[in-house]
Amino acid sequence: MTGAAGFLGGRLARTLLDRGELDGRSVDELVLLDVVAASAGEGDPRVRTVVGDVADPALLGETVDARTGVVFHLAAVVSGQAEAEFDLGMRINLDGSRLLLDACRAAGSVPRVVFTSSVAVYGGDLPDVVTDATPLTPQTSYGTQKACAELLLADHTRRGHVDGRVLRLPTVTVRPGKPNAAASGFASGIVREPLAGVTTVVPVPPEVRMWVLSPRYAVESLVAGAELAPGRLGGSRAINLPGVSVSVGEMAAALERVAGPEVAARVSWRRDPAVEAIAATWPGAWDTSRAEALGLRGDADFDAIVRAYMEDDLPHNL
Amino acid sequence: MTGAAGFLGGRLARTLLDRGELDGRSVDELVLLDVVAASAGEGDPRVRTVVGDVADPALLGETVDARTGVVFHLAAVVSGQAEAEFDLGMRINLDGSRLLLDACRAAGSVPRVVFTSSVAVYGGDLPDVVTDATPLTPQTSYGTQKACAELLLADHTRRGHVDGRVLRLPTVTVRPGKPNAAASGFASGIVREPLAGVTTVVPVPPEVRMWVLSPRYAVESLVAGAELAPGRLGGSRAINLPGVSVSVGEMAAALERVAGPEVAARVSWRRDPAVEAIAATWPGAWDTSRAEALGLRGDADFDAIVRAYMEDDLPHNL
Ligand SMILES: NC(=O)c1ccc[n+]([C@@H]2O[C@H](COP(=O)([O-])OP(=O)(O)OC[C@H]3O[C@@H](n4cnc5c(N)ncnc54)[C@H](O)[C@@H]3O)[C@@H](O)[C@H]2O)c1
Ligand SMILES: NC(=O)c1ccc[n+]([C@@H]2O[C@H](COP(=O)([O-])OP(=O)(O)OC[C@H]3O[C@@H](n4cnc5c(N)ncnc54)[C@H](O)[C@@H]3O)[C@@H](O)[C@H]2O)c1
Repeated sequence: MTGAAGFLGGRLARTLLDRGELDGRSVDELVLLDVVAASAGEGDPRVRTVVGDVADPALLGETVDARTGVVFHLAAVVSGQAEAEFDLGMRINLDGSRLLLDACRAAGSVPRVVFTSSVAVYGGDLPDVVTDATPLTPQTSYGTQKACAELLLADHTRRGHVDGRVLRLPTVTVRPGKPNAAASGFASGIVREPLAGVTTVVPVPPEVRMWVLSPRYAVESLVAGAELAPGRLGGSRAINLPGVSVSVGEMAAALERVAGPEVAARVSWRRDPAVEAIAATWPGAWDTSRAEALGLRGDADFDAIVRAYMEDDLPHNL
Repeated sequence: MTGAAGFLGGRLARTLLDRGELDGRSVDELVLLDVVAASAGEGDPRVRTVVGDVADPALLGETVDARTGVVFHLAAVVSGQAEAEFDLGMRINLDGSRLLLDACRAAGSVPRVVFTSSVAVYGGDLPDVVTDATPLTPQTSYGTQKACAELLLADHTRRGHVDGRVLRLPTVTVRPGKPNAAASGFASGIVREPLAGVTTVVPVPPEVRMWVLSPRYAVESLVAGAELAPGRLGGSRAINLPGVSVSVGEMAAALERVAGPEVAARVSWRRDPAVEAIAATWPGAWDTSRAEALGLRGDADFDAIVRAYMEDDLPHNL
């Protein structure tokens, strides 16, 4: 697993160790690669922690070998950073993905490769409903790098170097920790800050719609994505995960229902034209029937997402 | 111009030197880069020939500079070779394109970059009619590399590093010289060999449809693509050129009409299942109304393509 010290990587690593098996095979070794030392499964004899750069071909050559059965490729710099630091984004998001595929090819074990892509591969003039077959028209460098990596994964799959699966994640929320610079950061802040007793400012009007998924279902989907039989995928390896489409106003209402009016009163609204402009490019509606037919699941609604956060990340509060 | 020693590069170079101007500016210097020394415009003081690799960043840094106004990026290894030599195709078709864009960005002159892409970016389950907005679903490594380069060009354009234009060329025919290993090679062989007094074997049934363009109109389109005002391109920088959709049987009939029955009798038919399988993946019908609205033109019919070949490449025969 690359990016194993991150938000989703840490949770996925713990899930894999707890399950002890993946697609009917036991998890004998879990290699956690990240520039930061991954802490999941510390002391577990099955875990090998590798600290290093996913864009370092020598390191990848040592890390991926003939025993590698499944690769979860999560390492990335996220959208705001890839936009601000173009070369860095290209190196990690594009070169890293490409070099990892080359390492898999060299290893010869034809591993399943689960790649976390993003709905940022879409943009511009979109159809009313986005499906798995909607053209990739990224409007950011991050989205461009993810789209290129998707294409490379498809080609390596076609050539028989890997057995690739691309999961396009909605905005994963609630992300614990500090607010970050992502334009979509308020999708976590609107729940996280009020529950921490802190006020939060939402930079878009309540009508703005988002496409969200809890970390629980993001991790469940990564596991399910790895377990999908290749024959079920057909001509396309890329799947939009079943998120919840919810307006920001409904998010605040869900918070009030789940956590009470006192908590919800900590949400305030002040429009930020820069964020609003980005939000205006987000697709409106999604058709994820292919994902559902493949057995992939998402949250019932935003209330469930708020509850999942409280259970998983704020157990002392309950 | 990269790939300036090639089939289209040589013709484009001669056209630019003959015109002496591009988009109202005089052609003061024409830099011809290729791994093979380009011969177009030999002795012309405006020509600088650079022999080297388009995937060599130092060479690109020396070659692209603040005076660079237009870049024609033609260097590539073609589909058969990119499929057989994966690393080579990745290096030249993907890295070369990316490094060239980086060199343009470093030069700071925001050049117009005209990139020759291919209908190989399409494949798999295609709609009945392919348009500029059809999703990129390449089924070859060559098509994958072209699709990635298109995405990178769009991102560099969005960021203001270059002013990019992607022209997706149909199969350019008639290509003079020896038969090559391309699956679509018979689209040239069916005219070239009989006119040279040699028999040719067509490996697909007469009903198979192809999408073709003469080198004349390919070069005219490259020039027109460079001259398109950026405001006319709208949200997408990629244009499918107006080819001629013609069955292989009609190609043979056109040859007979233009060159006579004796020449056409040198065409014989023997199905090759491998080529037929590739041909079965070629799109059937095209809607190139966007290209036409932008003023891009193609051949009237296959008869005109045969005549253009005889005039341009076999003048001693006429
Ligand atoms: N969280 C979301 O909302 C979301 C949405 C869509 C897609 N994704 C994708 O899912 C994946 C995981 O997301 P996340 O939220 O856990 O991100 P994260 O930022 O929390 O984790 C990414 C990890 O990658 C590591 N990393 C960065 N550069 C690296 C390098 N050069 N070599 C090795 N490791 C490196 C970081 O140290 C970090 O631990 C990413 O690919 C992301 O693009 C996430
Ligand atoms: N001819 C067609 O039918 C057709 C169709 C679709 C797209 N295209 C594209 O149009 C462009 C030109 O096509 P063409 O038919 O003239 O091809 P060509 O093979 O005749 O010319 C390509 C040139 O690129 C040069 N080249 C290869 N590797 C290089 C490197 N590392 N550095 C510098 N130069 C290098 C070759 O020496 C050659 O002169 C190519 O990008 C091709 O993919 C052509």
